[in-house]
Amino acid sequence: MSESRAGSGGQGRVGGNLTWQAVRAEAIRRIREREWMPGSRIPDEAELAAELGCARATVNRALRDLAAEGYLERRRKGGTRVPETPVRKATFEIAVIRQDVEARGHRHGYRLLGDETGAAPDEIASALGLPKGTPLRHVRALHLADDAPFCLEIRWLNPELVPPERAVFDALSANEWLLRNLAYSAGSFGFSARTADAELAALMACPEGAALLAMDRTTFMDAVPITAATLIYREGYRLATTM
Amino acid sequence: MSESRAGSGGQGRVGGNLTWQAVRAEAIRRIREREWMPGSRIPDEAELAAELGCARATVNRALRDLAAEGYLERRRKGGTRVPETPVRKATFEIAVIRQDVEARGHRHGYRLLGDETGAAPDEIASALGLPKGTPLRHVRALHLADDAPFCLEIRWLNPELVPPERAVFDALSANEWLLRNLAYSAGSFGFSARTADAELAALMACPEGAALLAMDRTTFMDAVPITAATLIYREGYRLATTM
Repeated sequence: MSESRAGSGGQGRVGGNLTWQAVRAEAIRRIREREWMPGSRIPDEAELAAELGCARATVNRALRDLAAEGYLERRRKGGTRVPETPVRKATFEIAVIRQDVEARGHRHGYRLLGDETGAAPDEIASALGLPKGTPLRHVRALHLADDAPFCLEIRWLNPELVPPERAVFDALSANEWLLRNLAYSAGSFGFSARTADAELAALMACPEGAALLAMDRTTFMDAVPITAATLIYREGYRLATTM
Repeated sequence: MSESRAGSGGQGRVGGNLTWQAVRAEAIRRIREREWMPGSRIPDEAELAAELGCARATVNRALRDLAAEGYLERRRKGGTRVPETPVRKATFEIAVIRQDVEARGHRHGYRLLGDETGAAPDEIASALGLPKGTPLRHVRALHLADDAPFCLEIRWLNPELVPPERAVFDALSANEWLLRNLAYSAGSFGFSARTADAELAALMACPEGAALLAMDRTTFMDAVPITAATLIYREGYRLATTM
C-alpha cells in the first residue's frame, strides 16, 4: 500500500530506488493518516528499507530529517517514535544587522554610542553564569537605515575574548565583528516587546510609548561566555523567517 | 597540525577514528583562525578524510552539520565554501500554546471567542496567495494561564482542509488541532511588537498602550494554503529558544 503511493509510476525514484524525499513524504503520510499512531514506535530502518525497497541509508536520511523537524522522536535505546504531541521546529537565519538593512533596500549606517568596561549588572552576570560584579565590556551602538534609526545594539562582552585593543567598534559593529571572528557553540534567544521610554524614544526617533520588538541573545563557546546582547528594532519592524 | 589538535590523546576518537564532532570542532577552528579564509573553497571530503584519518562519511556528517548552522556553504557544483559573511542559523521549537503554558507551571485554559466563514481580508488573501475575497474560516480564541489571558489566537483557515463540521474548536484549539492533524511542508514566521488598543487591552487584561509580542504565521501543504494566524501574547511575555 505504501509502495503504491510512494513509489508508483517511478516518481521519487532514482535508478529504480526511492529517494529520501519520497521516503520522507511516505512517512509523513503515515503519520498524518494515523497508520503510525501518536506515541507509537515505528518500524526500524532495516524493516522500512526492506518494505519500501530502498537502501537503509535512504531511510536513515529521511527519518533524521523528520526528527530534526519534530515529526519523529529518536531515542538512543527505544527506537523511533511518533511524538504524543508533535513539536514543530523552525529554523531562522541570523543575518548581521547590516545585511538586514541592505536586504530591505536601505543604506546601512552605524554610530558607536559608548564603549567602556565595568561591573556587569546582576541580571547580565547571571544570564552569562558569571559571579556578580564581573567586569564586562559594555558597548552601545545605533544602526541606521538611510540615516534613520533601525536597531539599537546594547551589548556586554567578555573582555578576555573581545579585548578593546584588538576589537574596535568605531566603524565595524560588535554584531558583525563577532559573527566574523568568534564561532560560538551554544546560546539562547528571546523575543519580547518593550515600550519606548523617553530615552529610547529619543534614540529610536519614535513616539514615547511606542511598542518595539526586542531580541535578546547570549552566546557561549564551550561554556565560556562571549556576549549578552539586546537588539531593539525600530517601530513597525517585523523579523521574518521561513521554514 | 590539524591532527595534533583534533586528534591528540585519543580525544574525539572512537576505536582510533575521529568522531564527526571532532571533525566539526577542527573545521570550526580552521574557520576561526582563518586557515580557511572567508569566501574560499575548502578541501573536498575525500581530501579531508585522508588528512584527518577518518571515514569520508564522518567528514560528510560534520560538514553537513556546519552547513546547516551557516558556518559553511555547500554548492551543488562549486564545492564547499566558507561564506563571505557568515549567516548563523537558529532553530526554535514551535510548541503548542497549551504546552507553553504548562511548561511555565500554569494551568492551561481555553475560550473560543468566534468561528465563522466569510471573505478573507485583502492582506490575508494576499499572504496566502489567494484571490481577493476568497471565503476563509475565521477563528478567534483566548488561551489562559491560571485563568489570566495568555495568548490571543486569531486565525484564518482554508475551509476545505479544516471544515467546521469536522474540525471543532470548542474545547481543542485550532493551534493544537492543526499540529495534530495537518502536516505542513512550508510556511513563514514573523515577530513584531504591537500596541494594545482598547479592544486588545480588554481581551488581554492589560493597560491600553501596552507593548505586546505578536507572532504571525502562514503554513502551506504543497503550495495549498492551510492557515494564516496571529498569536498575540500577554504583556511581558518572552519567547525563548536555544541553539
